[in-house]
Amino acid sequence: MKKTPTAILLIHCPDQKGIVAVVTEFIYKNGGNVVNLEQHIDAEHKVFFMRVEFDLSSFAIPSEKISEYFQTLIGERYKMTFKLHFSDERPRMAIFVTKMSHCLYDLLYRWESGMWKADIPLVVSNHDTLKPLVEKFGIPFYHLPVTKENKAEQEQRQMELLEEHNVDFVVLARYMQILSEDFIKEYDQRCINIHHSFLPAFPGAKPYHSAHQRGVKVIGATSHYVTAELDAGPIIEQDVARAHHGNTVQDLVRMGQDLEKVVLSRAVHSHLERKILVYENKTVIFN
Amino acid sequence: MKKTPTAILLIHCPDQKGIVAVVTEFIYKNGGNVVNLEQHIDAEHKVFFMRVEFDLSSFAIPSEKISEYFQTLIGERYKMTFKLHFSDERPRMAIFVTKMSHCLYDLLYRWESGMWKADIPLVVSNHDTLKPLVEKFGIPFYHLPVTKENKAEQEQRQMELLEEHNVDFVVLARYMQILSEDFIKEYDQRCINIHHSFLPAFPGAKPYHSAHQRGVKVIGATSHYVTAELDAGPIIEQDVARAHHGNTVQDLVRMGQDLEKVVLSRAVHSHLERKILVYENKTVIFN
Amino acid sequence: MKKTPTAILLIHCPDQKGIVAVVTEFIYKNGGNVVNLEQHIDAEHKVFFMRVEFDLSSFAIPSEKISEYFQTLIGERYKMTFKLHFSDERPRMAIFVTKMSHCLYDLLYRWESGMWKADIPLVVSNHDTLKPLVEKFGIPFYHLPVTKENKAEQEQRQMELLEEHNVDFVVLARYMQILSEDFIKEYDQRCINIHHSFLPAFPGAKPYHSAHQRGVKVIGATSHYVTAELDAGPIIEQDVARAHHGNTVQDLVRMGQDLEKVVLSRAVHSHLERKILVYENKTVIFN
Amino acid sequence: MKKTPTAILLIHCPDQKGIVAVVTEFIYKNGGNVVNLEQHIDAEHKVFFMRVEFDLSSFAIPSEKISEYFQTLIGERYKMTFKLHFSDERPRMAIFVTKMSHCLYDLLYRWESGMWKADIPLVVSNHDTLKPLVEKFGIPFYHLPVTKENKAEQEQRQMELLEEHNVDFVVLARYMQILSEDFIKEYDQRCINIHHSFLPAFPGAKPYHSAHQRGVKVIGATSHYVTAELDAGPIIEQDVARAHHGNTVQDLVRMGQDLEKVVLSRAVHSHLERKILVYENKTVIFN
Repeated sequence: MKKTPTAILLIHCPDQKGIVAVVTEFIYKNGGNVVNLEQHIDAEHKVFFMRVEFDLSSFAIPSEKISEYFQTLIGERYKMTFKLHFSDERPRMAIFVTKMSHCLYDLLYRWESGMWKADIPLVVSNHDTLKPLVEKFGIPFYHLPVTKENKAEQEQRQMELLEEHNVDFVVLARYMQILSEDFIKEYDQRCINIHHSFLPAFPGAKPYHSAHQRGVKVIGATSHYVTAELDAGPIIEQDVARAHHGNTVQDLVRMGQDLEKVVLSRAVHSHLERKILVYENKTVIFN
Repeated sequence: MKKTPTAILLIHCPDQKGIVAVVTEFIYKNGGNVVNLEQHIDAEHKVFFMRVEFDLSSFAIPSEKISEYFQTLIGERYKMTFKLHFSDERPRMAIFVTKMSHCLYDLLYRWESGMWKADIPLVVSNHDTLKPLVEKFGIPFYHLPVTKENKAEQEQRQMELLEEHNVDFVVLARYMQILSEDFIKEYDQRCINIHHSFLPAFPGAKPYHSAHQRGVKVIGATSHYVTAELDAGPIIEQDVARAHHGNTVQDLVRMGQDLEKVVLSRAVHSHLERKILVYENKTVIFN
Repeated sequence: MKKTPTAILLIHCPDQKGIVAVVTEFIYKNGGNVVNLEQHIDAEHKVFFMRVEFDLSSFAIPSEKISEYFQTLIGERYKMTFKLHFSDERPRMAIFVTKMSHCLYDLLYRWESGMWKADIPLVVSNHDTLKPLVEKFGIPFYHLPVTKENKAEQEQRQMELLEEHNVDFVVLARYMQILSEDFIKEYDQRCINIHHSFLPAFPGAKPYHSAHQRGVKVIGATSHYVTAELDAGPIIEQDVARAHHGNTVQDLVRMGQDLEKVVLSRAVHSHLERKILVYENKTVIFN
Repeated sequence: MKKTPTAILLIHCPDQKGIVAVVTEFIYKNGGNVVNLEQHIDAEHKVFFMRVEFDLSSFAIPSEKISEYFQTLIGERYKMTFKLHFSDERPRMAIFVTKMSHCLYDLLYRWESGMWKADIPLVVSNHDTLKPLVEKFGIPFYHLPVTKENKAEQEQRQMELLEEHNVDFVVLARYMQILSEDFIKEYDQRCINIHHSFLPAFPGAKPYHSAHQRGVKVIGATSHYVTAELDAGPIIEQDVARAHHGNTVQDLVRMGQDLEKVVLSRAVHSHLERKILVYENKTVIFN
């Protein structure tokens, strides 16, 4: 479909007149063609948000210079916070798991079937349960058991592994450990978690038990970027399924797994497509 | 469709063998035909739940005696809690509102179009905003303004009105006042509220503001029986709609109104069809 | 929220470089501020689509001249098809009904509650069933019974009425008559219908009967602009609800009504917000 | 959860009084405890439907004799069509695939994670694309390429393989071949297909292309038992997802895969749980 490589700019800044004109003129004058543009203003906070994707096939500025030129010519003047990505990048995604396989299977399928332009250089786990599955797919599996005593040390090891494997972002595919603030800081807006409830309902442990106890008629799943406060990071995607009185906790767990894997994969897809902009603990998800 | 009148039995009791056989034999031996039966066991608490509806056209026991006979012959022996209803009853429903009309319109439409076998003898409000609308439909409207000072007194008046109008149950169609424990006790399992969030997320006031603040990707509505603890009663029905980053609080309010009215009306419909059984702050909603 | 008036441009044209830049520069140079912009390209057909909304508070060109200037300076050059709307317009909507009231109630509620910036100058029906309801709201009701013999004549009368009342668009709120090609041509992209199935499944009459017969597990509703081919116009909005084996045709009708009214109202809302662009029998619905 | 084995009876027959009583008395008198019962009547056709599950731990009749006794004592008298299953059976499921892996992954995950009490003795395909994946899981993979010339012969071979492996039912996990009437007859109500549209919309080939062409706002997936008429068998499960104007056919394919796999797996789950009864080309899906 999209054969020629494109550049993707994600921008936010204080609103003022003329920003869209200035940015699109920059693209046009340098030979780019806008393929897709979405812009809106947060009227309450007077903030400008934009995602613009443009064709690079006859763009005058070399890819590795675009960011510098854009910052000098436009970014600085408008006090922009921006990120620049390219459609022909192939991000490297580490997966963290514990014992449950449903999200992992879903991620592996999308990777192996070629649906996603991403590499999975490694899987990390605090248990060895999923080692055979991961190794079937030829992906290195690192078993780093975590105890109270060795937690800091093991996390240090995890960060070294991510470094060694040039990992761009981390997917917590039902990883049942809380990460340290250092880790979270290092992977700010680059660490995606799936929580098995429709947050902010039922944060923390055992949400399906709590949902069953409360007698809810819908259960949910929430994917979010990890921040220092548990289950309180910017929400990327949520979805729900209907439950009924006859469902046991085990039924909710089973039904919920179908939600979790789809919600997590949609969130990772949006991240890979560079459709997410984080602003004040909320996400803008472009179309 | 269902022309001949039916009786509906809602039962729960400690589980033991033979209960379905005993109840259905009682119906069969007395000339009834089971039209619909749903039964299940809560395996954890060993509780038996059943809803059975049977045709009364050649039933030997007169309607007004069925409850007594059933209690004597079966209920007592199995320590049953049961309710008996008849499909040709026409329950009387009071509606409480404040200023917002969306749920009220929806209830009036269902009543006026004949969709529901129910009467609406009165509407009560702490404001007079909706008086003209209600009176268009020929329904008495009682304006009982509530202040800190007169709250107890006005609630007393409300209860008298409900008494006078032989009201069977109360629907709080976005009524923005907290009811007293006395009122709630009197209308236990007979007072249905709509809350504008997917509970237990965002209880209390201004849930759409909180949802916007948190950046959720789904908003919801919850209908529940009112209990002494605010927004914590047995949930009857819930549903959700997708939200996105561009939605303002006002958008959420507008989108949420479509949810609220449908969720509330589904809950009232289940109540009218005698499909709800409450057990330990949860509902069993039969099919 | 949006207090200052805005202009809304809906554009499609053959794709080429620089269009966004040229349009947004036109806005910027004349003192407008882009509030919201969405643009994309249909890569297959090389067609450019855009919706841009801009603040008019210090716009140099008077509102009544914008269209002419835009056409001269830009539209012509890029072979654009465009429409210009203003947020402070108050479109006039005629409603056509037959006997069923659920969609009508929903439209009336949105109008009366002030949710929608629109007027309802008249309701037209081939039956007088809903006359009392419409007149409660002080809206003129025209009863124009349609028979094979008088169909052409009555439609002529309808068109005169729409003319007399300066109607901008027509909503068929379960109007059970097929309109002539003349009428459809006159109200091209200005006549919104609700069909009670998820088209293209079950076009034509009695879709709930067909859905029941087929044993589907979801039922749906579809709102679309009316075109000469029955139930085949550009789809604006669709939604579905779960059905199950126990549902009778009457249950489906009842459940479907909740879908129909919400789907129709969402479609009308998108139309009122000028978020719809029709291209080759499909709609682009901007966010 | 459910530790003690249970028996499951699925019954339909002409309606008459006393059937529930007679069946549940049979269970009770022989020492069984009803765990779950759902019964309803099709009022239009006067047909009685029931699913009853009962605990076997102290049941007087040996499992292998229950069917015979039930037929003699009750089934014959009431002209019942019934099926008897046991919760400790472990059905054997063959999977047919072509080249796409999404449904296969989902089925393999549910099997390997122990979620389902089922065995997968073999996978059959007309291509060898998925051989490596299947063999990773230690499951025999049979590559039977199908041409116009060898179709009958290869299908013969397929049926022999199913026979040899004692297969109970077949899952067509995006198997892109039409089966012969002989095969379909042999696996009547035992062959589950997933079709990538919300049937009856878009039957046959390339439904996502058709959906894109028509501009629908929801896409769907349908799982059904295979019958002689293409895509017209009894529907087991359906679900939908929202689409929008910007989605390409490829987007719909990608989004649809998430639907297909979940819808197919829900259908297989209902089949495994013995919750499906087929009657006149429609399914009754008990809760």
